[in-house]
Amino acid sequence: MTQPSAERKPRPRDARATKALLLEAATDEFAEYGFSGARIDRIAERGGANKRLLYVYFGDKDDLFDAVLDEQSKAVIAAVPLPDGDLCAFAAARFDYMLANPRARRLANWRTFERSEPTEAERRSFKERVETVAAAQKAGRLREDIPAVDLFAMVLRLTESWLSAPPGLLAASSWRRNPMSANRLKEHRAALIAAVRSIVEAR
Amino acid sequence: MTQPSAERKPRPRDARATKALLLEAATDEFAEYGFSGARIDRIAERGGANKRLLYVYFGDKDDLFDAVLDEQSKAVIAAVPLPDGDLCAFAAARFDYMLANPRARRLANWRTFERSEPTEAERRSFKERVETVAAAQKAGRLREDIPAVDLFAMVLRLTESWLSAPPGLLAASSWRRNPMSANRLKEHRAALIAAVRSIVEAR
Repeated sequence: MTQPSAERKPRPRDARATKALLLEAATDEFAEYGFSGARIDRIAERGGANKRLLYVYFGDKDDLFDAVLDEQSKAVIAAVPLPDGDLCAFAAARFDYMLANPRARRLANWRTFERSEPTEAERRSFKERVETVAAAQKAGRLREDIPAVDLFAMVLRLTESWLSAPPGLLAASSWRRNPMSANRLKEHRAALIAAVRSIVEAR
Repeated sequence: MTQPSAERKPRPRDARATKALLLEAATDEFAEYGFSGARIDRIAERGGANKRLLYVYFGDKDDLFDAVLDEQSKAVIAAVPLPDGDLCAFAAARFDYMLANPRARRLANWRTFERSEPTEAERRSFKERVETVAAAQKAGRLREDIPAVDLFAMVLRLTESWLSAPPGLLAASSWRRNPMSANRLKEHRAALIAAVRSIVEAR
């Protein structure tokens, strides 16, 4: 809502806005093409700035990718809590988040098989999640005969069972209905929560 | 083991061998770069033939990709049976198969988010799997309160929980050990089977 300015020196507010626009453009680009396929000049163009500015703000392609991943990590942590290690609530919230954010889904998918070094924020956030699960096991709220890291890894993947199902499986069910219709998603979400409950309940 | 031949006209055996080599090269290329990233000339070069021959044998890039996917489908079906809808046996076999075949894992991963049209073989094989699960539910061997398609989709994804875990999660557990060590994989495999049993058992 600010008026266009004719001044030469960018004001701090402009710098922040430009940075945010570039990060947004980079997120789109990495989600679409992955790390290797992404092109720095296309990001600059999408963000409406020049390549030099991109380097000044974020460093090289690796640094920029890290900035995107850290931003995504923060967003997921904020949107998908794990209250007292409640993996059912976590699964429902992560399913909803991934459904509403196809871009986050694509990025997460690239993440699992393209580049192997996690950022510090990713590492820390996953470590916290696993520790929360372990604490809930100790408190008797979750089953203890499966290691916390496996319990968390399995629930994490379960939340993508339908959204990242192989196209052949989605088609196999479409003799009955649209695989992404509101009704189908509602039915799957209930199935997901029931399955997670069965896996995690203390016994 | 055949002697090199100086004849001009390729014999049928040579044609079969060339086709197999090209399909193999195409599988490597699609697994590495995905459908859009794969390059026909690189496949021809990898397969030791020229591009024209590739077109003669397989058609265009779409047809070639379909041929690769159909071959993969057949291989997975053969290696990972679903006897009487036993999803625990299926999960263990699919985990072992994916562990032994990183290329199949990469292809499956591309498959879930790159191109959306399934081949006829993919569609048919998934439909058969879901129908097998539904029959086992009817026979009282699997729980009935979760739709067969969801039960199958969830078990399918569960088998990749560790092999396709986010790098940050793998790193989070490595304060204790190598995430892909034989012991870690054995422990995860046991956790996987226990989880699948909890999800699917009739109640």
